[in-house]
Amino acid sequence: MMEQCSSLGKIALLVAMAEGGLIEGYVESAREKGFRVATGKVGSMDMQKIIAAVETAAKREGLVDERYRSQHALYHAILEALQGLGRGPMQLGDVLRTAGLRFAIVIGPRILSDKDDLWIAVGMYGMIGAPIKGHEHEVCGLGINHL
Amino acid sequence: MMEQCSSLGKIALLVAMAEGGLIEGYVESAREKGFRVATGKVGSMDMQKIIAAVETAAKREGLVDERYRSQHALYHAILEALQGLGRGPMQLGDVLRTAGLRFAIVIGPRILSDKDDLWIAVGMYGMIGAPIKGHEHEVCGLGINHL
Amino acid sequence: MMEQCSSLGKIALLVAMAEGGLIEGYVESAREKGFRVATGKVGSMDMQKIIAAVETAAKREGLVDERYRSQHALYHAILEALQGLGRGPMQLGDVLRTAGLRFAIVIGPRILSDKDDLWIAVGMYGMIGAPIKGHEHEVCGLGINHL
Amino acid sequence: MMEQCSSLGKIALLVAMAEGGLIEGYVESAREKGFRVATGKVGSMDMQKIIAAVETAAKREGLVDERYRSQHALYHAILEALQGLGRGPMQLGDVLRTAGLRFAIVIGPRILSDKDDLWIAVGMYGMIGAPIKGHEHEVCGLGINHL
Amino acid sequence: MMEQCSSLGKIALLVAMAEGGLIEGYVESAREKGFRVATGKVGSMDMQKIIAAVETAAKREGLVDERYRSQHALYHAILEALQGLGRGPMQLGDVLRTAGLRFAIVIGPRILSDKDDLWIAVGMYGMIGAPIKGHEHEVCGLGINHL
Amino acid sequence: MMEQCSSLGKIALLVAMAEGGLIEGYVESAREKGFRVATGKVGSMDMQKIIAAVETAAKREGLVDERYRSQHALYHAILEALQGLGRGPMQLGDVLRTAGLRFAIVIGPRILSDKDDLWIAVGMYGMIGAPIKGHEHEVCGLGINHL
Repeated sequence: MMEQCSSLGKIALLVAMAEGGLIEGYVESAREKGFRVATGKVGSMDMQKIIAAVETAAKREGLVDERYRSQHALYHAILEALQGLGRGPMQLGDVLRTAGLRFAIVIGPRILSDKDDLWIAVGMYGMIGAPIKGHEHEVCGLGINHL
Repeated sequence: MMEQCSSLGKIALLVAMAEGGLIEGYVESAREKGFRVATGKVGSMDMQKIIAAVETAAKREGLVDERYRSQHALYHAILEALQGLGRGPMQLGDVLRTAGLRFAIVIGPRILSDKDDLWIAVGMYGMIGAPIKGHEHEVCGLGINHL
Repeated sequence: MMEQCSSLGKIALLVAMAEGGLIEGYVESAREKGFRVATGKVGSMDMQKIIAAVETAAKREGLVDERYRSQHALYHAILEALQGLGRGPMQLGDVLRTAGLRFAIVIGPRILSDKDDLWIAVGMYGMIGAPIKGHEHEVCGLGINHL
Repeated sequence: MMEQCSSLGKIALLVAMAEGGLIEGYVESAREKGFRVATGKVGSMDMQKIIAAVETAAKREGLVDERYRSQHALYHAILEALQGLGRGPMQLGDVLRTAGLRFAIVIGPRILSDKDDLWIAVGMYGMIGAPIKGHEHEVCGLGINHL
Repeated sequence: MMEQCSSLGKIALLVAMAEGGLIEGYVESAREKGFRVATGKVGSMDMQKIIAAVETAAKREGLVDERYRSQHALYHAILEALQGLGRGPMQLGDVLRTAGLRFAIVIGPRILSDKDDLWIAVGMYGMIGAPIKGHEHEVCGLGINHL
Repeated sequence: MMEQCSSLGKIALLVAMAEGGLIEGYVESAREKGFRVATGKVGSMDMQKIIAAVETAAKREGLVDERYRSQHALYHAILEALQGLGRGPMQLGDVLRTAGLRFAIVIGPRILSDKDDLWIAVGMYGMIGAPIKGHEHEVCGLGINHL
């Protein structure tokens, strides 16, 4: 699916859902199409730490600069992805659950053919559940914002 | 990614994200692994119509039967997917936005290797935005429930 | 339980949960203890109609007067009870579900022995589910506010 | 009310609302009708601790087993009951309030006469308020899920 | 307060709160400082109509152009202001209440002295209440987004 | 605007938005009209501390007494103001943001000319953002309750 993929959000989701060797190939493929991509993983019972992990990955890769403006865009894209993660309460440890996620931040036009303004997408995919081994199921989130 | 895919939620997301000829192949691939799959599309400013479209597709394909129990499981999986869609307010036309979605309902174990109880996943992927052509961006949702 | 019951919220819940001949006895018992009580039933896919039914019952029984102040107290007690009813989205038909409820509005001290200021409680009990016969389960809500 | 009571949610609420000697009698009455019941009490400013207390009581009484499936059903029934408790924000200490609760977990058919599948109900009843003695009012919550 | 006012959000609030002859003076004062301002009023039981009224005023005044990007920024600023308005459920008629508002949309730097990127603020002020004359109290909302 | 201002909520907002020497003048002006006013400031990543700061200011100024009733009214007015502050999740540090606020608590009739019952308003105004200097924008909240 990645080869034909030309939209920002789908790229963020596919990279977040990729495993092992597939990840680097997907990231490369997205970069060749002109998208900027950062990726990472995080496990926590703290929403705060998940937000910080995504922000750190984005900064390290140069997807956001020191201006508040770009970080504000990223922050709200993260919050929107976390709504898909939380599916109601935007809480983890506070409601006795934990999450292990892989995430991708992607910058580019909404659709390749559209060459419009730049947007930012945050895709998350992983497991959520009780702090007991194996007591978890999949979860995903996608947030998109204008840059 | 679909070939190696052995988890319920990822299958639901990949089928929902597939386009054109890819869809049928993905559905076949999932069925060969033992998952039961229904898929469909819906566009509306009404959350109610989106819920009804998913429920109808699941019934038509025999994924839920006439018992309340299975429909209760499906309903709450849909509501959870809609949280990713709405990212806060679980409303569409009421807050002046519309959505065009493709969705997949998948039944099977959480992970192929685990052969545990049956679970149900609802994946949604599409566009959300103002009721103005082109004023939209991608959105996705995933809900998972025990059956 | 009703005989020993001396607290506002429990009375509202017990009256809302009572059926048939029990209702009138419970209401009488509460009134003898000095509580003012109104009760009613409503079935709807509209939150708006449920709110209106409770407000109408309270007015008819003289539990609220024409001043905004008392109606503001009642309104917020209703909204709080509806949170227990909705358990997340405060919506019914919009998310394809319907509710059939019995409710009670009770005015009095929080606890009989405390003779403090007057408070208002709204208790709701009934069934919520899909608009399909038998596809429903119990639901309850309790809202309490100072008067 | 308990004698005639034949529905899952009402039993959970009545047991949670019972005091003193009444509790054991109500639990016995429910068990004679074929329902399985666990009960307990918890006071905390931590949602997390309330969830853990209910889960522990359910496990100790054998209402859930080691499989994720049954614990997933219980967890979501708890979360729904907590919505009635929180009436908006699903937070306690974070918004400077504390709760003291009695709770009941009940497993059985939705209605005795229906002998359908097993469902699980979580009923909670108690006091919520500021961390100041006497500055509190009643609160209740009910969550129901298919097992 | 308006003369010394040099921040985006405060200007949006003050203009929305101004009455009669004061409005035009406040708008002029803000424009002289370099802010772009649109203002209007709307009364409705429909969140949708309030959103549409703000969007229309912003377009008429040229604060947003035909590109999705600027309308996306405005839309989310409106949604955030509506959270202050709704204080929980982002609903009006659905929960039997109505609102009469004056609003202001302001574009400029966050603070005059900072000459950073352009941001957009939506301020709302008015009355919310039951659909009964006089049964209403004040309400306000402020949403701010990067442009 | 303050001179002509005769409504409870607008006074709370204007006092919260005032700076420096303006504050005392605004408070005096409100008191001369018969309103009771308390004011303060607080910065925190903890919703809990913001609530406590407002409650403490109200008590110190004698706006609420030792009875639960008046503190219940204040508490819910604060929670409503915090909805405008949070604009969705009612969380600060948990979602990696911090707030610096000035607030005002005002008691009086809803409108001077109406001499009806006493109501309480909580107005908040300040900055919210990432825990990085300058990465913040304005925020406001208003909660109103019958006393």
